Amino acid sequence: MEDIKAVARRMKLASPDMAATPVEVRDAALLRIREELLAHADEFFEANAADLAAAEEAGVAPAVMGRLRFDEHKLADVCAGLESLVGLPDPVGRVLLERELDEGLVLTRRSCPIGVIGVIFEARPDALVQISSLCVKSGNCAVLKGGSETLRTNRALFRAIHAAACEAGLPELCMHQVEARSDIAELLSCDGLVDLLIPRGSNEFVRYIMDNTKIPVMGHADGICHVYVDRAADLGLAVPLVIDAKTQYPAACNACETLLVDRAVAEAFLPAMGAAFAEAGVEVVADEGARAILGCAPATDEDWDTEYLGLKISVKLVDGVDEAIAHVNRHGSHHTDAIVTEDDAAAERFMQLVDSAGVYRNASTRFADGFRYGFGAEVGISTSKLHARGPVGLDGLVTYKYELRGHGQVVADYAEGRSSFRFRDLA
Amino acid sequence: MEDIKAVARRMKLASPDMAATPVEVRDAALLRIREELLAHADEFFEANAADLAAAEEAGVAPAVMGRLRFDEHKLADVCAGLESLVGLPDPVGRVLLERELDEGLVLTRRSCPIGVIGVIFEARPDALVQISSLCVKSGNCAVLKGGSETLRTNRALFRAIHAAACEAGLPELCMHQVEARSDIAELLSCDGLVDLLIPRGSNEFVRYIMDNTKIPVMGHADGICHVYVDRAADLGLAVPLVIDAKTQYPAACNACETLLVDRAVAEAFLPAMGAAFAEAGVEVVADEGARAILGCAPATDEDWDTEYLGLKISVKLVDGVDEAIAHVNRHGSHHTDAIVTEDDAAAERFMQLVDSAGVYRNASTRFADGFRYGFGAEVGISTSKLHARGPVGLDGLVTYKYELRGHGQVVADYAEGRSSFRFRDLA
Repeated sequence: MEDIKAVARRMKLASPDMAATPVEVRDAALLRIREELLAHADEFFEANAADLAAAEEAGVAPAVMGRLRFDEHKLADVCAGLESLVGLPDPVGRVLLERELDEGLVLTRRSCPIGVIGVIFEARPDALVQISSLCVKSGNCAVLKGGSETLRTNRALFRAIHAAACEAGLPELCMHQVEARSDIAELLSCDGLVDLLIPRGSNEFVRYIMDNTKIPVMGHADGICHVYVDRAADLGLAVPLVIDAKTQYPAACNACETLLVDRAVAEAFLPAMGAAFAEAGVEVVADEGARAILGCAPATDEDWDTEYLGLKISVKLVDGVDEAIAHVNRHGSHHTDAIVTEDDAAAERFMQLVDSAGVYRNASTRFADGFRYGFGAEVGISTSKLHARGPVGLDGLVTYKYELRGHGQVVADYAEGRSSFRFRDLA
Repeated sequence: MEDIKAVARRMKLASPDMAATPVEVRDAALLRIREELLAHADEFFEANAADLAAAEEAGVAPAVMGRLRFDEHKLADVCAGLESLVGLPDPVGRVLLERELDEGLVLTRRSCPIGVIGVIFEARPDALVQISSLCVKSGNCAVLKGGSETLRTNRALFRAIHAAACEAGLPELCMHQVEARSDIAELLSCDGLVDLLIPRGSNEFVRYIMDNTKIPVMGHADGICHVYVDRAADLGLAVPLVIDAKTQYPAACNACETLLVDRAVAEAFLPAMGAAFAEAGVEVVADEGARAILGCAPATDEDWDTEYLGLKISVKLVDGVDEAIAHVNRHGSHHTDAIVTEDDAAAERFMQLVDSAGVYRNASTRFADGFRYGFGAEVGISTSKLHARGPVGLDGLVTYKYELRGHGQVVADYAEGRSSFRFRDLA
């Protein structure tokens, strides 16, 4: 079998052709993929049944089994996703700037695909469909490595998707699936061939990827999100908001790990909050001040830097919004943090000074998600400040190039004063 | 003296305050810096005279001496730059997207500074002024390390700039200068504190930086730029264009290193081109086909991947635009590449398929520069496809965050069907 680097090299050479594919062909490919998925549904369900049986035998936790499943419901979801993607405007070829530098010398900044993207994702067959279709819509070639627990389902899905894409006129190398865990290390060494890596999965896994490649990486390792309940909070609104942020899906990166409470409202707020935690089965650890009210176990220094990924939360009292901001900027992971307050000034201060991809007022941190932002789908959530930040949809999968059209202009004429620039933005 | 990491840590904590500075304060700081520079001109010229004397004694090449110089002319240039920067719109706080997700739940994508930027730049005192003023305008804190050949000038300039910025109301830690070469290694280890590194200088130096830090790096190592002369080229236009691209400033990253010539016009074009190279003192190496006409030395395989940074060029014959595109994508550095042609279809094909930050038709590659693009100034040129690509001005020094304003909305209501998203873009 051909090694990954050889495939990546061929894919790199094919990527300009993929990038030049008209949007009509890319959209037709998405519709063709949808048809092919519906036509081969039974094959996927059969392959998935075998994956699920193997996972059960291997003792995979019931909570995880739901992610591995690919059934009628998930098929309907991904088909709806494909349709909505077809309806979205083309992210490629958009004119972002058009400027005459001098008479007859026109500069255009135009969006274009990134090129070759490597995506390493968890065992979730619907993610394979979503990611490959986002890459098709954005004109990128993709190397896809899904979690091995759904190997059979992934293989069947990829075969159908790839065949449909090629039949619709996309280059044969528009996408490639790798299956072996050992392929990941080889993929990491493909700098110069793969333009971007998007790893999804556990913190340790994402950090391993970030630390072991020269390829730019988009994603996030930790998700240490905070809710700060301010002295001017509507306390009745705060309790269900914190419960949602903590419990609606505790394993998600946008779940809340630390609750900061303004000392001024601690007595009024924490008894009701503590009761709600108890009812929801949330284990609580807290600093001295909060413990005095909650009667829970003490938090250690480590707790403020810990992502529990489960039904546990740390609670800390702070002296107002500035101490809350300082705590979040120091201990957070720059993902998503919320303030609960009716005070406009405190809210704006928190939202301006907290250095995170998402800064919320009176809303649950769990809203940080491409679908909930109306992006149609996401390839991941980025806590990097460069390129795309927060949930990343189609926009994050394109870059731009500068086109310059002239009639033989040379720089010497401008450097030596025979010509001069007359900048004029067009249209 | 405080170590760099400790400074970076304090700067990181100060960066949200810097980011929140109103544009009026940042613009006032730029004007104050301009005044201070004019008031202390004699100090800079005196320091610069000492730097130049030391450089001359150390045997620095005359070609480099011009870059080290800081005189009335350069002072006037940087003051003009400061004024034009004041006139530019605020890059911070711009609303990039405003979307109602549901009634009373509004998402805003707003531009904001990146945070802490480390810039390591060549010995050019005017670059210190440009870079620090771009960081001020964009609300970023900056760690600045200039080339040691102008240490005295840099020190005097930084003292004046920093004092003026603080007097205008910027945080004391808005900028910090480091001087020792050993500080660079420490700066590279400041991941988590420094958000972005911008190295400028030799290819080896930039590559060293890229290979030795976990901090995102913006810049370029090689600049292997091409001009392709197509069969439909206006050959009279091609000769001076190639001469400009090669000789107007041969040490620049956007100078041409390889000339590709369509075999169909080689006989008609190369004799005149060869004569022009000879007249301009350009050494030529070529493949077999071009040598038969030019009578020059043979090019080796290595030549196609070499940035000469001097008066030398490699010449190769290709069979039309597709072979030219393939050569550029394989051997180029994705910086800036030009086609000379009167054929619209060939031009568009080249510009779409060449995978470079700049793709030009009938214009010299030397135009790839922030000033010539009308950006006011640039912090550098990026060949990365992520974040900023090509010449990077103010736009490349900002990121964005997502603000979400609600009234206590929780995700459970949407997940369990009690509410549903009604996306509506505002304004």
